[in-house]
Amino acid sequence: MEDTGLRDVDIIRVKSGYPAEEKDQVVVEMPLTIFLNGREFVTLLCSPFSLDCLAVGFLRSEGLLFDSGDLEEISLDREKGFVYVRTAGSVDLEEKLYGKRTVTSGCGKGTVFFNVLDSLQSKPVVSSLRLSGEVLLKLLKEMQNNSALFKATGGVHSAALADREQLLFCSEDIGRHNAVDKIVGRCILDNISMDDKILLTSGRLSSEIVIKGAKMGFPIIVSRSAPTTLSVEIAAKLGITLVGFARGKRLNIYANPNRINSDSL
Amino acid sequence: MEDTGLRDVDIIRVKSGYPAEEKDQVVVEMPLTIFLNGREFVTLLCSPFSLDCLAVGFLRSEGLLFDSGDLEEISLDREKGFVYVRTAGSVDLEEKLYGKRTVTSGCGKGTVFFNVLDSLQSKPVVSSLRLSGEVLLKLLKEMQNNSALFKATGGVHSAALADREQLLFCSEDIGRHNAVDKIVGRCILDNISMDDKILLTSGRLSSEIVIKGAKMGFPIIVSRSAPTTLSVEIAAKLGITLVGFARGKRLNIYANPNRINSDSL
Repeated sequence: MEDTGLRDVDIIRVKSGYPAEEKDQVVVEMPLTIFLNGREFVTLLCSPFSLDCLAVGFLRSEGLLFDSGDLEEISLDREKGFVYVRTAGSVDLEEKLYGKRTVTSGCGKGTVFFNVLDSLQSKPVVSSLRLSGEVLLKLLKEMQNNSALFKATGGVHSAALADREQLLFCSEDIGRHNAVDKIVGRCILDNISMDDKILLTSGRLSSEIVIKGAKMGFPIIVSRSAPTTLSVEIAAKLGITLVGFARGKRLNIYANPNRINSDSL
Repeated sequence: MEDTGLRDVDIIRVKSGYPAEEKDQVVVEMPLTIFLNGREFVTLLCSPFSLDCLAVGFLRSEGLLFDSGDLEEISLDREKGFVYVRTAGSVDLEEKLYGKRTVTSGCGKGTVFFNVLDSLQSKPVVSSLRLSGEVLLKLLKEMQNNSALFKATGGVHSAALADREQLLFCSEDIGRHNAVDKIVGRCILDNISMDDKILLTSGRLSSEIVIKGAKMGFPIIVSRSAPTTLSVEIAAKLGITLVGFARGKRLNIYANPNRINSDSL
């Protein structure tokens, strides 16, 4: 059974001048240490579910594996917060780790080891995916309605995978990068293509979220939050349709609007 | 003159079914590369102001310098996005960088190189600082009112330093860690003590924000957002007064409530 991701804590709640001892539900944050091919690799701070997806998605985002064929074994010691991943080929960790470092602005680690600027050399996304703004707003609303933890605590991010008709699955995490990595990891574990899907996120669209999406080939990235200048530039250059501030009956298209049919909104 | 941190971009705004070509103000995200003692150290993604404070605060948070006495020189090449820092002593970068890595959930890098769990061995904060919840709410409101960028874009975090009476200064950044590091850096550059001050942030109170605050000796950390189980535990253990969901006329005290006088709220 998955952890609910919530714990009761004793707090003093002060409301219009009156303090009261109460219980409050607080979102769980736990360390997850990834061992890659027998070697301690990294510790992530995360919410306590979909940990296998998180580990695989993180390693994919960092370029340490690419598809399920690269995965030989994955096992989780939930008690210790350890996940052991064995890949088919050997990975040159030294080179991966000790090269250029970019520390990003991302909630949920961003990308520690990859160079944001290099990724501008990524190939543009090509996809014939089209859908209406109306469907996009419906998908985002559905993701939000699915986010039990956010409703309970206000302290987590959501992400989701969708095709042009429906939400396929959602994730939640204290970090917006973790939430996206959980989606990526599940796609890899279940052999689901990403280059014909939509990535939805509750979090800000910073450059490294867009670069992460681009690496997976997502043609459309949507958020209820704001983009940045760098993320707009990157999305424009890489052929990604970037939609921000998608809330209620409105949305802003920041790059490559051709994939969104707005008449029907 | 400081950059406004905003750029106009062309967007398609879709509102209740009608698409329109419009201008939108988007928050600037830029790479800042820190050179430490002549060597390229790290690239941060950040908002384009208080870059010297950000560099110094980041290095302090990573334990690579401690006070202004450790700083020999700092110079900024704004055009290139480079900042050159020279420290008084030599820094064993290899050891700092290639030791245990924890990648945190933080917006704005968190802490790439330090081990979250080790920091539980930090010394508890000792401080006689006391203030009323009323003043705390006033300080947070003032911080929010000062945040021009947030008002314009909804895409940035704020942080601020306050004493028991007033706000001393604020910072803004696309990353919540960057915003806090800018406060820390300014304190170091201006020789301002932190162990008798209040750290305010608009962002979530994840463990590494609390650990960062603890390292600086802040006795009180306040946010309008949610804490996590790990951050509450750490604050309790380290003697830090942790206040979350401070909005309007209410706030929640998650640890060490003794410093907040709630009768007068």
